[in-house]
Amino acid sequence: MTIVLAPWRSPLARALHRNRALPNARYVQLATVRANGCPANRTVVFRGFGADTNQLKFVTDARSEKAQQIQRSPWAEVCWYFPKTREQFRLTGRLTLVQSNETDIDLAQARQQTWQELSDMARSQFAWPHPGHPRTITHPFDDTVPDKMNPLPDFCLLLLDPERVDHLELRGNPQNRQIYARVDHTWMLTIVNP
Amino acid sequence: MTIVLAPWRSPLARALHRNRALPNARYVQLATVRANGCPANRTVVFRGFGADTNQLKFVTDARSEKAQQIQRSPWAEVCWYFPKTREQFRLTGRLTLVQSNETDIDLAQARQQTWQELSDMARSQFAWPHPGHPRTITHPFDDTVPDKMNPLPDFCLLLLDPERVDHLELRGNPQNRQIYARVDHTWMLTIVNP
Repeated sequence: MTIVLAPWRSPLARALHRNRALPNARYVQLATVRANGCPANRTVVFRGFGADTNQLKFVTDARSEKAQQIQRSPWAEVCWYFPKTREQFRLTGRLTLVQSNETDIDLAQARQQTWQELSDMARSQFAWPHPGHPRTITHPFDDTVPDKMNPLPDFCLLLLDPERVDHLELRGNPQNRQIYARVDHTWMLTIVNP
Repeated sequence: MTIVLAPWRSPLARALHRNRALPNARYVQLATVRANGCPANRTVVFRGFGADTNQLKFVTDARSEKAQQIQRSPWAEVCWYFPKTREQFRLTGRLTLVQSNETDIDLAQARQQTWQELSDMARSQFAWPHPGHPRTITHPFDDTVPDKMNPLPDFCLLLLDPERVDHLELRGNPQNRQIYARVDHTWMLTIVNP
C-alpha cells in the first residue's frame, strides 16, 4: 500500500535538512501522561519515518516509565525545536508500542529492522539494569555488545501517528503559524495567529 | 525570608554556564495536560529564578491554551536539554499563573518586574491578536511598542515550583542519573540507573 505523504512532511523534511549539521536537531521532547494524570516529558531521538507511513519512529525500553504510561494512555505530544531555522513543530497523536511479543508481522519486522539500524552503544543500553531503579554495585553495567540480528527482549519500537501538527516559524515579524489537522483521511490546513 | 538553594540548582547553574554560548540553551519544553486528558508540549523561554525562591520563571499570554490548561491542572513537567554538555533536566512541579488581577502583592510586583525585563519585541506580542485563532487581514499586528512600565492585560508571569528533578548526563558510559525529590522542606537525592 502506498501512503500519501501528509502535507506537514514537506516543511518538516526541509527543517531536518537545513538543521542537519546539528546532532540535536534529531532530538525531540515527548510528552505523555502519568497514571496519576500528571504530565511526563523527556528527550527522545527521532529514528526516521516508518516505511510507507507518516508515523515517526522512536525506540524505548519496556521497563521505562513511558512504556507503562503508553499502555494506559496512548496520547502524546512531541515538541520539536530546530535551533538553526528557529522553528517548532508540535505533533499530537497516538503512540504504538511494538514489543517482543508483537503478533503483527509488519510491526514485528519493523522492530527488528530498527534494532539493526541502532549503534552498538544504543543497543547495549537494553542490557543495562532496570532504568530508574537505584544504582547498586551488584548490578554492573554489561559491556557485552548485543547480537545485531536479534533484539533484546526489553527493546521496543515506538511509533507516533500524528493527527495534528502545529508549525511555528519564529523568524519574521509577525511569526508564521500553521496548523494541520487530520479529519478522516484528509489533512486540513489553517493559518493561525502565532 | 531567605530560601535555601535546592541541591539541583548547582548542577543546573553549571549547565547554564557551560552552555551560555547557545541561545537555545535557555529554551525548555513545557508539558501540561489538556482538558481532555491528553498531553500538550511547547517550547518556552526560561526567564531566570524568582527572587529568594527555587521557582523557574516563564511568561505566557492569558489567551493561550496553556493558561487555560494550568487553571484546570497546575501540574507540569519541564524537559531541558543542554546540547553542548549533553545533559537533561526534567523538572516536575506545580505552576502558578500570575495574571493582571493578582491580589498577592509580591506576585503582582514580580509580574510587573518580569514585564520590564522583556525586550520590546517580546512585549509587543501581547498586543497581537488572539493566539491560535485563524489569521485574518482584519486583525493587523500592531507595531506599537507597549509601555515598558505597565504590563498589557494579557501578560502573565508563570512560575514552576519543582518537587522532583531528574538529571541525566549522557556523557560517560554508563551515563549518570540523579533524582532529587522534595519531601516537605527537604530534598532527597537518589542515584539511579540511566
